[in-house]
Amino acid sequence: MKSAHRRRTSSDQISELTTNRLSVYLRCLSELDIAGVQTVSSQSLAEQFRLNAAQIRKDLAYFGEFGVRGVGYYVRDLKRHIRQILGLDKSLRVGIIGAGNLGLALADYQGFKNEGFEIVALFDASVSKVGQQSKGGVPIYGMRDLKRLGKRVDIAVIAVPVTSAQVVADHVVSLGIKAILNFTPASLTVPPNVKVKSVDFTVSLESLSFYLANEAEA
Amino acid sequence: MKSAHRRRTSSDQISELTTNRLSVYLRCLSELDIAGVQTVSSQSLAEQFRLNAAQIRKDLAYFGEFGVRGVGYYVRDLKRHIRQILGLDKSLRVGIIGAGNLGLALADYQGFKNEGFEIVALFDASVSKVGQQSKGGVPIYGMRDLKRLGKRVDIAVIAVPVTSAQVVADHVVSLGIKAILNFTPASLTVPPNVKVKSVDFTVSLESLSFYLANEAEA
Repeated sequence: MKSAHRRRTSSDQISELTTNRLSVYLRCLSELDIAGVQTVSSQSLAEQFRLNAAQIRKDLAYFGEFGVRGVGYYVRDLKRHIRQILGLDKSLRVGIIGAGNLGLALADYQGFKNEGFEIVALFDASVSKVGQQSKGGVPIYGMRDLKRLGKRVDIAVIAVPVTSAQVVADHVVSLGIKAILNFTPASLTVPPNVKVKSVDFTVSLESLSFYLANEAEA
Repeated sequence: MKSAHRRRTSSDQISELTTNRLSVYLRCLSELDIAGVQTVSSQSLAEQFRLNAAQIRKDLAYFGEFGVRGVGYYVRDLKRHIRQILGLDKSLRVGIIGAGNLGLALADYQGFKNEGFEIVALFDASVSKVGQQSKGGVPIYGMRDLKRLGKRVDIAVIAVPVTSAQVVADHVVSLGIKAILNFTPASLTVPPNVKVKSVDFTVSLESLSFYLANEAEA
C-alpha cells in the first residue's frame, strides 16, 4: 500500500510547492553534474545550496527515490528521475503571445532551452512585427496564425497588455491548449481542465521591500 | 507577552511564504477596493480568490489585525495595514541593471508603479543605449553612472547576461544597496546583510510541465 501510494503522482496530491522544490533540486543537480560531481548526500546538497536536508529526503522519498547509505544520491540518476517526474523527458513546445520587450526576452530566455523547452513561435497583433524574429531567431507570427500553429503548442505564454489578457486566454483555450503561463497582472478565468500559472514580479519586489523595512527598524 | 510577540516582525521570524501571501492579499484587496467593496470576511475573500480562509485569519492575526465580528475586515484599513507591514508606505527607488528586452520590459512594468515603486533608472554597458530611454520614459545610463546614482537606489534589479551577474552584484553591494532582485539564473554570493530574491521563469514552466505530464496519464 505504501509503495503504491508513493507512485501516485496526480497533480491534485502534489502541491505546487513540491514541484517548485523539485525544480530547485534539478537546478542544483545540474550544477553538480556540470562540476563533475557523481554522488551527493541530502546533507551536502542542503549545505551547498542552502536547502533543508530533511525536506529533500521527504520530497524524494515520496517519489520512491532513496539515497544509498554511505553514498547519497547518484547525481545523474536523480537528475533523470526528477526530469521524468516533472515531465521534462518529453520536449514541450511553447508559444509566446505578445512580442513586446517581455515576450522577446522570454523567447530568448536561456533557461527554457537548457531545460528542453522549445520556443516554437511568437505571436503579435502588430502587423509591423509579423515576419520579424527575436535576436535568438524565434519567428513572429500574426494572431491569425495562432489558430493554425496552436496545434503545435503545449504551453502558451501570455505576455500581452493586461487589457487583452482574457481575450487571448479564451482564444488559447479554444485551440485546446491546456497550460498557460500568465505574465500579466490579470487573474484569468479558464475551464477546470486548463492550468494557469501566473508570474507576478511585484510579489518578489514586495518581499524585498519587507526586508528593507524590517532591517531598517532592527 | 502575546501582543508583544505579534508586533515583532523581524524578517527572520516571518517566512518568505507569509510575505508572499500578504502580497497576494494586498492584490485582492486592491481589486475589491476598486470595485467599491468596503468590508470583506476571510471566508468571502477566500472564496472569491481561491485562498484558504483559516490561513488568512492566521496570517493577519499574527500582525495584530483582527476582523470585526459580523463585518469582517474593512478593506481600505486592511490594505493600508498590509502596505505598512510590507514597507510599501515608503516609496522605494528601483534601479535596473541591463537595458536588454527584459530590463526594458521591467522598467515599464505597470505592476511596479501601481504598488508605489519608483523606477529611477536603467543602466547598461552598451554605449549605444546610453542616453536613450524605455518606452515609458525611464532613462538609460552607463555603468559608470551607477556609482553616482546608486545612492538613490534602494533595490537593484539585475537583468544582465548570466556571465556578468556576479560582477554586477558585487558592484551593487559595494555601493551599499541592500536588496537585489535577480533575474539571471546565477546564484549570487552576497554578504549576509544583503537580501537577494531570484526570479526563475523555468520553475513556473516546469510546474506546468508536471501538470501536463500527469493530466495526460490521468
